[in-house]
Amino acid sequence: MQALNDLPPATRKRLVQLEELLKSWSGEKITSAKICELTGWKDSLVRHDLFLIEQSVKNRAERVDLGLSKSFVRGWKNGYNVSDLLAKIQSINKSGTQNVCIAGLGRLGAALLDENLFDGSQFVIKAGFDSNVNRVEILRSTFPLYPASDMNWVIKQEKITLAILAVVDKDAQQMCDRLVKAGIKGIVNMTRAVLKVPDSIKVENLSVLNALKLIN
Amino acid sequence: MQALNDLPPATRKRLVQLEELLKSWSGEKITSAKICELTGWKDSLVRHDLFLIEQSVKNRAERVDLGLSKSFVRGWKNGYNVSDLLAKIQSINKSGTQNVCIAGLGRLGAALLDENLFDGSQFVIKAGFDSNVNRVEILRSTFPLYPASDMNWVIKQEKITLAILAVVDKDAQQMCDRLVKAGIKGIVNMTRAVLKVPDSIKVENLSVLNALKLIN
Repeated sequence: MQALNDLPPATRKRLVQLEELLKSWSGEKITSAKICELTGWKDSLVRHDLFLIEQSVKNRAERVDLGLSKSFVRGWKNGYNVSDLLAKIQSINKSGTQNVCIAGLGRLGAALLDENLFDGSQFVIKAGFDSNVNRVEILRSTFPLYPASDMNWVIKQEKITLAILAVVDKDAQQMCDRLVKAGIKGIVNMTRAVLKVPDSIKVENLSVLNALKLIN
Repeated sequence: MQALNDLPPATRKRLVQLEELLKSWSGEKITSAKICELTGWKDSLVRHDLFLIEQSVKNRAERVDLGLSKSFVRGWKNGYNVSDLLAKIQSINKSGTQNVCIAGLGRLGAALLDENLFDGSQFVIKAGFDSNVNRVEILRSTFPLYPASDMNWVIKQEKITLAILAVVDKDAQQMCDRLVKAGIKGIVNMTRAVLKVPDSIKVENLSVLNALKLIN
């Protein structure tokens, strides 16, 4: 099945945002002009993205009939049916619950504990890890916390596939290696470190400091 | 002066990471092959980026002589002088101290208080804002916290140019509008919301949930 990751990275990022935009859109229809206005993206970009969505849905091995092509072309001018478009985007996204862990429970990692950040999403935080056993014992959360030495069996037992890496920069690569060894397939890297991972592992870099440099 | 933002977005992101990598590199020289090995980036990408750095430094109005071209070509095989390469990357980055504020002091925003996340960088957090006055009074931090109603004068008085937006999703656009009105030039958006900003304002999206979707 064609997945979100087969699309160009810039399109992928916009689609993830477009999904949020459509979810919060109260009207039944939306025009590409309106999407441009709300996002500030160029018209040509938006049309290109919507074209790629269409192609991607079409190309899937299981040809789910979502009744696309004609409605798609009409959409330029008359507006897209929002629930249709949302269904298409969501059909490209990998669906199904994904189990997530947090590695590193310092201030930043701990900020994700009990957080309703993931409510209503497909992601469920199953575990938090920290090398500091005191921290693991003191912190409160809605899911279990473990010393980092338990990482291997917990990740396997809880079928955790994704990790949020929030350790201090100097421990990032070592913790990353342990996560990969335990079977993690994707890492959201909140550290400044450049992670070295095997080709099959996906990494999204989410360092606040690096982001500041990019907008400066 | 040519700035980091004139380069393609993907190159910009890699350069910001390359800077971190070089800072932590203990050797005097580094080859492009080594950069590939450490980052997992393709050889062609790394060479392309290094070429763009070279061009960018060359194209600058003030032609600072950093003694580039020949050493650059030799670098493919013999390795680059790390401090030279770092100087080039840093000369492309906008230098000088930038004042930053945090808008929204919930768990995520509060996690950035007192954080040594910005130590040794060019960014200085000058203020935190929250609509909840209790929160402003109770939280401890190394910089002053203000009710959101003080935003306008504080941002002007403290010459704050960049903001980290960490409010709840539903308040994101409204808070963003206030930041822009107060004179902010760039926003690190930690919410899920798609922000609408004037063309001149830069936004980097750093939502953990959206990042999870991208690695899924």
